[in-house]
Amino acid sequence: MPEIKKVLVANRGEIAIRVFRTCRKMGIETVAIYTHADRKAPHVRYADEAYCITDSPADTSYLKMDRIIDIAKKTGAAIHPGYGFYAENADFARACADSGIIFIGPSPEHIELMGSKTGARKAMMEAGVPVVPGTEDPVKDLEEARKVADEIGYPIMLKAVHGGGGKGMRLVEKPEDLESAFRTAQSEALNAFGSSEVYIEKFIVQPHHVEIQVIGDKHGNALHLFERECSIQRRHQKVIEEAPSPFITDETRAKMYEVAVKAVKKLGYYSAGTLEFIVGADQNFYFLEMNTRLQVEHPVTELITGVDLVNQMIRVAAGQELMYKQEDIQRRGHAIECRIYAEDPTNNFAPSPGLITVYEEPGGPNVRVDSGAYQGYEVPLYYDPMIAKLCTVGKDREYAIRNMRRALSEYKIAGIKTSIPFHIRVLKNETFLSGNYDTGFIDNKFDMEDLKRRENEDVTVPVIAAAIKQFLSEKIAAERAVTRPDVGESTWKRSGKLYNICNRLA
Amino acid sequence: MPEIKKVLVANRGEIAIRVFRTCRKMGIETVAIYTHADRKAPHVRYADEAYCITDSPADTSYLKMDRIIDIAKKTGAAIHPGYGFYAENADFARACADSGIIFIGPSPEHIELMGSKTGARKAMMEAGVPVVPGTEDPVKDLEEARKVADEIGYPIMLKAVHGGGGKGMRLVEKPEDLESAFRTAQSEALNAFGSSEVYIEKFIVQPHHVEIQVIGDKHGNALHLFERECSIQRRHQKVIEEAPSPFITDETRAKMYEVAVKAVKKLGYYSAGTLEFIVGADQNFYFLEMNTRLQVEHPVTELITGVDLVNQMIRVAAGQELMYKQEDIQRRGHAIECRIYAEDPTNNFAPSPGLITVYEEPGGPNVRVDSGAYQGYEVPLYYDPMIAKLCTVGKDREYAIRNMRRALSEYKIAGIKTSIPFHIRVLKNETFLSGNYDTGFIDNKFDMEDLKRRENEDVTVPVIAAAIKQFLSEKIAAERAVTRPDVGESTWKRSGKLYNICNRLA
Repeated sequence: MPEIKKVLVANRGEIAIRVFRTCRKMGIETVAIYTHADRKAPHVRYADEAYCITDSPADTSYLKMDRIIDIAKKTGAAIHPGYGFYAENADFARACADSGIIFIGPSPEHIELMGSKTGARKAMMEAGVPVVPGTEDPVKDLEEARKVADEIGYPIMLKAVHGGGGKGMRLVEKPEDLESAFRTAQSEALNAFGSSEVYIEKFIVQPHHVEIQVIGDKHGNALHLFERECSIQRRHQKVIEEAPSPFITDETRAKMYEVAVKAVKKLGYYSAGTLEFIVGADQNFYFLEMNTRLQVEHPVTELITGVDLVNQMIRVAAGQELMYKQEDIQRRGHAIECRIYAEDPTNNFAPSPGLITVYEEPGGPNVRVDSGAYQGYEVPLYYDPMIAKLCTVGKDREYAIRNMRRALSEYKIAGIKTSIPFHIRVLKNETFLSGNYDTGFIDNKFDMEDLKRRENEDVTVPVIAAAIKQFLSEKIAAERAVTRPDVGESTWKRSGKLYNICNRLA
Repeated sequence: MPEIKKVLVANRGEIAIRVFRTCRKMGIETVAIYTHADRKAPHVRYADEAYCITDSPADTSYLKMDRIIDIAKKTGAAIHPGYGFYAENADFARACADSGIIFIGPSPEHIELMGSKTGARKAMMEAGVPVVPGTEDPVKDLEEARKVADEIGYPIMLKAVHGGGGKGMRLVEKPEDLESAFRTAQSEALNAFGSSEVYIEKFIVQPHHVEIQVIGDKHGNALHLFERECSIQRRHQKVIEEAPSPFITDETRAKMYEVAVKAVKKLGYYSAGTLEFIVGADQNFYFLEMNTRLQVEHPVTELITGVDLVNQMIRVAAGQELMYKQEDIQRRGHAIECRIYAEDPTNNFAPSPGLITVYEEPGGPNVRVDSGAYQGYEVPLYYDPMIAKLCTVGKDREYAIRNMRRALSEYKIAGIKTSIPFHIRVLKNETFLSGNYDTGFIDNKFDMEDLKRRENEDVTVPVIAAAIKQFLSEKIAAERAVTRPDVGESTWKRSGKLYNICNRLA
């Protein structure tokens, strides 16, 4: 069995550090790679060894397959890809294998299969996983369209076979609307894409994004680690995730776990993976895609299960069996993750790179921070603007949310804009608190104008208040030092009140 | 039922912040008190309101009962005492009650009872809790001494009734040594204390300090939250604690839980409390004392149970029932706490107050930091030198230790000496790793000379290494910017190796 004594993370930021932390705990040496832009990045500081992967300061790309493989060969390291970059690149996994490097992830074949939308759909259908009902192939005429639509049930979506960007797409809510929608979709498709071919898919009303965490080893063992609800998204990217899902029923949950584990076993999939599903208001669920990597939001699963997913991935890559059986995986409580982005939520979440002048993380009970930043660090322009993940856990959803509000209130970042004010508002939003929110949350249920209005209160006022508070505490202390009890007392009373107001605002 | 809307913590440092965090999570307003020396302390910054309790900058004492009660009355706050200061002062609890202030702790009567060594011993005996066998009253002659010693079994300890500081104390390992030891103890006692009276106590060989966390409410409910092993002590003060105890058997555990809960119920005790026991090598356990407060080391219990003890204390004080039944309290994994002191372990743990010039806390999975410090904070001379508590959790003891080693390696504090190097060595000590360590650990099993020798390596070398590393990374980047591939490559190779050596050392 190959032993892993050193791990190179082909990634940067918080996820590189996340993997390094497990390595350090396991006594495995660590190798960082970096670009010139990242030479002062925290992941470079953390690793035992660090190698620059470009010759040019202007080259900010981490996609340097040959160079990375070369460094791994020279240092004798296995490679963990993190997420993004080479994480779901079958060629990279194959190049590792060809160079005798252990790739800490699934097989190239599984990465490839799940990277193909149609291949994944087919494989999952064969494994008994429900997929969004539809034709995939073009329907030849209105008659066939009507037959298919009746079969899968309304509402349905007509989509151009060669289409994209909404052209040739038509939502049909009831049978009597089908004919005209079909004609319009066909002619739109013809105009836009040179082909009138359309296919039919079931339309999921108020879709929820729920995913099942799975992990398998090379000995045929596979298990699930419950689900995560990831419906709070901006620009189709998740910003808040939680586990368990507050929306699905225990019956749905059990069914989802069952089909996910069955599929993983049937596919012979190993390493960590995630089956993403869309769940309708009726609790029916349909496979969307499988992510063949560690997810950004894996800490919420770690918090409720106590399992270190990175450690399991390393074990599996080394050919060992999983440390757990399904019955060992017990859920305790509820966990939430807020992704802390260097971006301006009130300006359509535009990136806000720059120098972090103040950086203080929350601490204490039930909080986990996975950070890729520090005070004095300059967030570069070139990469994903996520600088940290803030997670909390609690005995139930209410307590996880209470802990998150507390932790967000402690998080101090200055110099750049962050998504913290956005998270604070979401955590007070009634739809979010109800637990029944769908992927349309930010567009339909979140008051962005209110966030903009409050920005002044949230940002300017605390700064002024903190300054006044500091001034007053010095002043009060000085006055008290003078032995004029009467004057002192009254000044203290007056300024004490102002001090307390400032304290409340800060 | 009285509602608690505001809490004043009659304390400072990390424990004040610990209590504030639960308050903030529960939507309860917070009040800090402070001395002039502490006006920039983190707990003052954290609270919604803050009041200075002295008129003189020279007065650094927090023992200002009237002033504190006055502030609580004016602000309408309940009082949480933390630990130390007024935490186990029955007069303070009574003064709160007399002023109509809710005291977040047990009744004054229970504080008083447990504050008396003989009262506590008697109450616990009546409640069926085993105490250290002995006479308590003086034995009148050798004949009686022999009878008692035979009854409780050797080894025994002879102690002067009016004694202290080891004078008049004699360890007797076997019956034939009793006579001469008894005579010597009597004459020593007479010379030192003016009375020859001695009493007999069973001597516990290689004693372990194991304590049971309990909590009760005012409705007669009481439960235990497992045990903590606290045998690593310096100057009779705990420095590392863990849960569960690696030493006691499951049978002992079960018995200890049973007697503890039975005693709490019999006494009608409410709020959090801890029964401290001494456990012998033979697994027999004997009551030492009951702490009628929140313990410093409560986070290890919170980590393995998921229970917020401060929240339960507040509920109980408000007259509510506990949120949990005994069967809800499930243990997951193993947790360890290292107390981070501003002190020099190689200089007999002497306090090391001063300005913290660098302060970076560990993060990521399975770590909890309860801190009372920040970068730029000046640790005052006047108070307990504990500046933070670092806790880790893992699926079992091995993993909790691995996580702790990783977390300690990430903790960066400069400007003052801390106990971190000491903890790093303990976490590698074979006796500690075996789990069978007793209260004599630091004196008998820990190589302090080794720690002193390594201080240079641990402290000086990383500083130099970090400086070289920074220099080299700049240099490498600069060289690479110049388009002289051959020279650049060789320089890179050479300095790259040095860089990696430095990285390993830093």
